[in-house]
Amino acid sequence: MSGPHPARRTFLGSSLGALAGASLSACSSTPLSAGSRVSPSPPGSLIAPGDVVLFQGDSITDAGRDKALVTPANSQRAFGSGYAWLAACGLLVARPGEKLAFFNRGISGNKVFQLAERWDVDCLSLRPDVLSILIGVNDIWHARGGDYDGTVETYERDYDALLKRTRKALPEVKLVICEPFLLRCGAVDDTWFPEFDTYRAAARQVADTYGATWVPFQSMFDEASEFAPPEFWAGDGVHPTSAGAALMAQAWMRAVGA
Amino acid sequence: MSGPHPARRTFLGSSLGALAGASLSACSSTPLSAGSRVSPSPPGSLIAPGDVVLFQGDSITDAGRDKALVTPANSQRAFGSGYAWLAACGLLVARPGEKLAFFNRGISGNKVFQLAERWDVDCLSLRPDVLSILIGVNDIWHARGGDYDGTVETYERDYDALLKRTRKALPEVKLVICEPFLLRCGAVDDTWFPEFDTYRAAARQVADTYGATWVPFQSMFDEASEFAPPEFWAGDGVHPTSAGAALMAQAWMRAVGA
Repeated sequence: MSGPHPARRTFLGSSLGALAGASLSACSSTPLSAGSRVSPSPPGSLIAPGDVVLFQGDSITDAGRDKALVTPANSQRAFGSGYAWLAACGLLVARPGEKLAFFNRGISGNKVFQLAERWDVDCLSLRPDVLSILIGVNDIWHARGGDYDGTVETYERDYDALLKRTRKALPEVKLVICEPFLLRCGAVDDTWFPEFDTYRAAARQVADTYGATWVPFQSMFDEASEFAPPEFWAGDGVHPTSAGAALMAQAWMRAVGA
Repeated sequence: MSGPHPARRTFLGSSLGALAGASLSACSSTPLSAGSRVSPSPPGSLIAPGDVVLFQGDSITDAGRDKALVTPANSQRAFGSGYAWLAACGLLVARPGEKLAFFNRGISGNKVFQLAERWDVDCLSLRPDVLSILIGVNDIWHARGGDYDGTVETYERDYDALLKRTRKALPEVKLVICEPFLLRCGAVDDTWFPEFDTYRAAARQVADTYGATWVPFQSMFDEASEFAPPEFWAGDGVHPTSAGAALMAQAWMRAVGA
């Protein structure tokens, strides 16, 4: 008996752990104290108590957030309803005492150069401890549509410059680079490939160059499509459904050791 | 070796299981085939393949859903961003092949009699296999404010009649009754108690009468408030934060054996 109300603690401790995908409490057959069940951070987690975590990207990250709400942290309306909010929820409920602060600054339609245009305000001034970026699908999509003259070389060069600038301004920032992905349905057909794969490779290259944690969304969705049709995960092949967003959140949490 | 790409399957299988709080895959030290990792439903789960699951309630369930969108199932915009969507996400990602269909028909401000007024359209006509209801806080809140003359007896009588009507129309429906809850912060002070506890007891009574699965939100939040201040879980004491909604989703999934 390690504290008051052991039965109730067991219920809550398991709930808290489960949403974050933290299997420790669920797997343990030995009752643990509340303190060891919930918090501190798992060993090796990228995210430490008190961290400011910023999600950046395009519509997949934006996910309908209310852009007039820049504060407070962790607000659902300010976060939209995508993988970023789901991942934030997972961390907040698993580590309630750690004063984690999550922000979302994704904007629909953005390509890398548009992140760069608003980087001072929408990234550097927030001084994130952890910065997660998912960008790339518009860099190829808008070029295919004739609205943008960038190439994969533009994408990689702009992305590299953005991370170089970030590292210079925030030397200690922990970077998370998310793999751009497509599902083969909706707006996406075979004509996107193999060109799209070169964008994925470019993202991986900059992630490696800057020592970022990599979130392998494409391979995840490739495998997920063996369990349910691509439309189940992203109706138009680009924007995740509820299930797709939830799966992304899980992969993100796993990648950062949440 | 039970299939192609075992390493990738392990990654996805764990992801799928974790969000739903399904500890089987996470706990297993033995690699399982894809088929046994993901689906079928866990033994004893209230939710079976192909089930239509309906969430009903007030603002906590509503959570900003777009009420013009009555279909399709599982749509985030049609679902809002509360515990109901988070729970649906958890189930969808854990059991992608089961063709589960989630709907939300919560409406802000509703009391039990207002559910009854729209029950034919917003419940019975949907013919849910699983019906989850969270209602009660407005039944006491609006009475305290002088805008409603109902009492706890009204609440219990109306709730009982609603479930009797539901059982008659849908004899096989699997019922989930969620405990009304308050956090001691924001709009909630000691003057709500012990009266509010009588509403919780009434909800429990009707749950028992109709053989419903019970989701103990109050005891969950009481315990959660030992880990972080009540405001962390529900800023005004009534409406959950991101963390509060995520914790509710976990408790809901646990209660239905998701």
